[in-house]
Amino acid sequence: MLRIMRTLLALWVAMVLSLGTAHAADGPRKVIIDDEGFQLMHLMLLESSEVEVVGITTVSGNTWANRATAMVLRGLEIAGRPDVPVAQGATYPLLNSEALTKRWEAIYGKLTWKGAWMKQWVEPTAQTTPAYYGPDDPVNLPGGNPTLKPSPEIAANFLIRMVRQYPGEITIVACGPLTNLALAQRLDPQFASLVGELVYMGGSLNPHQVLDDQQAQEFAREFANSPRREFNARFDPESASIVSRSPWRKLTIIPVDPSTATQRTRTLLERVAKAAKPDVAAFVSDLEPGFPLWDEIAAGYVLDPAMVTNAEDLYVDYNTQFGANYGDMLSWREHYQPDLGEQKAYVVRAIDPVRLEAVMVEAMQQGAQSDE
Amino acid sequence: MLRIMRTLLALWVAMVLSLGTAHAADGPRKVIIDDEGFQLMHLMLLESSEVEVVGITTVSGNTWANRATAMVLRGLEIAGRPDVPVAQGATYPLLNSEALTKRWEAIYGKLTWKGAWMKQWVEPTAQTTPAYYGPDDPVNLPGGNPTLKPSPEIAANFLIRMVRQYPGEITIVACGPLTNLALAQRLDPQFASLVGELVYMGGSLNPHQVLDDQQAQEFAREFANSPRREFNARFDPESASIVSRSPWRKLTIIPVDPSTATQRTRTLLERVAKAAKPDVAAFVSDLEPGFPLWDEIAAGYVLDPAMVTNAEDLYVDYNTQFGANYGDMLSWREHYQPDLGEQKAYVVRAIDPVRLEAVMVEAMQQGAQSDE
Repeated sequence: MLRIMRTLLALWVAMVLSLGTAHAADGPRKVIIDDEGFQLMHLMLLESSEVEVVGITTVSGNTWANRATAMVLRGLEIAGRPDVPVAQGATYPLLNSEALTKRWEAIYGKLTWKGAWMKQWVEPTAQTTPAYYGPDDPVNLPGGNPTLKPSPEIAANFLIRMVRQYPGEITIVACGPLTNLALAQRLDPQFASLVGELVYMGGSLNPHQVLDDQQAQEFAREFANSPRREFNARFDPESASIVSRSPWRKLTIIPVDPSTATQRTRTLLERVAKAAKPDVAAFVSDLEPGFPLWDEIAAGYVLDPAMVTNAEDLYVDYNTQFGANYGDMLSWREHYQPDLGEQKAYVVRAIDPVRLEAVMVEAMQQGAQSDE
Repeated sequence: MLRIMRTLLALWVAMVLSLGTAHAADGPRKVIIDDEGFQLMHLMLLESSEVEVVGITTVSGNTWANRATAMVLRGLEIAGRPDVPVAQGATYPLLNSEALTKRWEAIYGKLTWKGAWMKQWVEPTAQTTPAYYGPDDPVNLPGGNPTLKPSPEIAANFLIRMVRQYPGEITIVACGPLTNLALAQRLDPQFASLVGELVYMGGSLNPHQVLDDQQAQEFAREFANSPRREFNARFDPESASIVSRSPWRKLTIIPVDPSTATQRTRTLLERVAKAAKPDVAAFVSDLEPGFPLWDEIAAGYVLDPAMVTNAEDLYVDYNTQFGANYGDMLSWREHYQPDLGEQKAYVVRAIDPVRLEAVMVEAMQQGAQSDE
């Protein structure tokens, strides 16, 4: 009798879970973007008719959170999407800081890219050096400031509220340091288990240079000598580790590796702009070319997971010791992991760049059509 | 006047230095092998007529130092070279230990290969598991024990005495943990500057699997998830760091990277055996096939440096923090290094495997001819 009741209970649980999945499949997939700034990745997800962006959160990384928030609000004005709520996130990483980074470099060598803390390149480079600001400096965007205002909620609280409102339905696409997600998980231990899927761009396995031009060579400078270091994780290693040890339903990681076969060329930007509606087209045409596609792969994976040509299930964590490998990605195949809470992740090693570019164009076309 | 005297002094110094080089070029190049065991690498250097092996030192690593010493003495008997002095080296790494390694694995995950501390593979593997011994267990070699005896000197003292006897003339080929060299450098701060060239096999940049067979796949298990970890450095990270920061005249590093294009196949062993004199041939035929060529690349580089097809000048050190990346190789291109004594090294990224195999055969032929 007890056995029958257990079986019935198991069936009921299975039914509820499958209903949950079926419900989630109704209508476009709900997405929250967590990132610093406003880029092609945001536009791909906003313009696509296959997903519904239900919120954007910001964080410090390549730029400070207040600046990132202004960029997102201005971007939403350009995209004609004032309905999307924006919640500003963490200004500072959990432990890391600009002062610590200076001391670190004195002992362990120069970092190639330091994001908001970057004052100059170590070597001459084709990429422009962004202007340097303090965390509370007033924001005046070159293209004009937004009139839209952010949500009064801080990002972590917004994220918790949304995943509780739509349990198991939301895909978070995180393309900056993982500070907001780590805070959300420590504020609410159920947070990760309420997220449908976390797709994050961060970490690095062992990338090799694929393209053979000046830009590709310059971006290879970092991973050639520190194959496990990537900026998002290195900016806030403790948050990356918390996220790695949180109980996600599904965890997908886009490390640097698949990006080495891609490039945001002038030709690609023009092709994407041509497919987009006028205001978006103007924005895309103004983007600086030469970068590998990083965040765009994360957005592309959400829109078309079949673009992945090589992936592996790995247990992942990040080195949180303040030393030479601070922030480095750690990975283990099954049987080798220490079992301290690190999650099995679907780690993308390679994608089809032609298919990714097609997805970018298609998303812009969908946005242009829905606008007609 | 002062300027003229300075110029004369500079000329005199230059002349003395060039005389030193000219003297070193007379006769075959003097080599000391520092390693754990007796392998193809030893035979390549012993049989070649282009170098003169003036001593062999042993160290713990893949096996304990006492066992390595017996293997070398037995090897010299087989090669008919009882004249080569053998000095036993360090039994223990500077800080690392078997007990620490167990604790490390509990926090940071399982190591693939642990050398003398290995009891079993984590996963099934084609390679045999060597028998497990304690550091002072009596040695009984399967092929019979040697009658030759080692030098009464400990390896570090032997190394110091030899480089003082032949300043700037000796090439050290080190293919195990670097404990002996670190001890020699701390015993005698001029040690490194008296060595002609240090060629060591150790460290790992970011190797990729090149060959596509079961053995290559199994050896890729380690570097796929820890591209900067290599056994020799991981067994004694502190010694590897001391060596990295010592003032060598010339420092050449063979990391794991060039080995992924090579394999000690049954065919290769038979080809090498066929070229060798009878006793050596029998020894070579009995070697276990399937391993990448590691130490053989170091010996091959000494005999024919032109086999290198890709190399880079890098500053190198090793992570000595007891953490997830303990023993990992650190490397910096010019301008990025911290300048804490780490040396610019010639780091070999790729070699021509066909040329290496030819060098192996040629060395055996030279040994067979000199025996006639």
